[in-house]
Amino acid sequence: MKKFEEKTVQTNLEFSGRIITLQVDEVLLPNGKTAKREIVKHPGAVAVIAVTDDKKIILVEQYRKALERSIIEIPAGKIEPNEAPELTALRELEEETGYTCANMKFIQSFATSPGFADEIIHLYMAEDIAKMEQASALDEDEFVELLHVSLEEMEQMVISQQIFDAKTAFAYIWLKDYLK
Amino acid sequence: MKKFEEKTVQTNLEFSGRIITLQVDEVLLPNGKTAKREIVKHPGAVAVIAVTDDKKIILVEQYRKALERSIIEIPAGKIEPNEAPELTALRELEEETGYTCANMKFIQSFATSPGFADEIIHLYMAEDIAKMEQASALDEDEFVELLHVSLEEMEQMVISQQIFDAKTAFAYIWLKDYLK
Repeated sequence: MKKFEEKTVQTNLEFSGRIITLQVDEVLLPNGKTAKREIVKHPGAVAVIAVTDDKKIILVEQYRKALERSIIEIPAGKIEPNEAPELTALRELEEETGYTCANMKFIQSFATSPGFADEIIHLYMAEDIAKMEQASALDEDEFVELLHVSLEEMEQMVISQQIFDAKTAFAYIWLKDYLK
Repeated sequence: MKKFEEKTVQTNLEFSGRIITLQVDEVLLPNGKTAKREIVKHPGAVAVIAVTDDKKIILVEQYRKALERSIIEIPAGKIEPNEAPELTALRELEEETGYTCANMKFIQSFATSPGFADEIIHLYMAEDIAKMEQASALDEDEFVELLHVSLEEMEQMVISQQIFDAKTAFAYIWLKDYLK
């Protein structure tokens, strides 16, 4: 859909980092005027809903420097170059939780911050999960704590804002319907 | 919660724009090593779920330069300096839709992209909405089209990915429960 399209007049790359880049686009508006758009480019990410046979949801707690606090999330991670999202999902599940699965079922994709970023998260459900004999290694700058919680415990984490990010908030209300 | 805290060793401001800034923090990890964190600072935003008396959900279609397409969203917008979020919510509802409301009920706050940004969205439900006689003015670089849709039409928009952002995806499954 191209309604109200904003054509790029000029692009200035302002920052190129290890994970994100930032550019400012000068755009032509539908009324003929121009405006500046600040845009963060991100490689995209996956997130995984994983539930054990006894209906415990697998979550990870980790420090999020951008928020200056730790939060509890569903397992997730960035897509590596040329990596298929469902393989990213399996890799992140294995690395962050020590579980693997027989099938990654696609649920939904969504843009996290369409006002300033192109990041898209692809959400999966890990089906037929099983504990691995030997856990995969985390990235060397990654520290996570694994949690297994009931739906009721997850609800309390939403209320107390220990769960505080959009994908996990979405996962909670999705699971409320799925597990009932 | 400060588990796995990453203390800032040094901060470098890389970009300061009209809406976002970008900084790279060098942090001290729990294992004593250091790492770089690329962080986007954003003033925060609100989003508003508004439903008419005949159970039509009020949505807006707008072009999102970061995604290079238009998407359909619940009304939303950035918090201005020193603005209380519930006032931002009322202002954005009035500006983007021409509706006002008697009460803004807080639903939930969530971080949109905790891996690289501090943006938090505060989600509200507009209660007792009414059409304004004279609509508020949009920002001069803002072009939106107003839509009134049923829950079933909203579901089709999720399936077709016309609805494609996290807050509106969340709003849809929240509304599925609320309107049933």
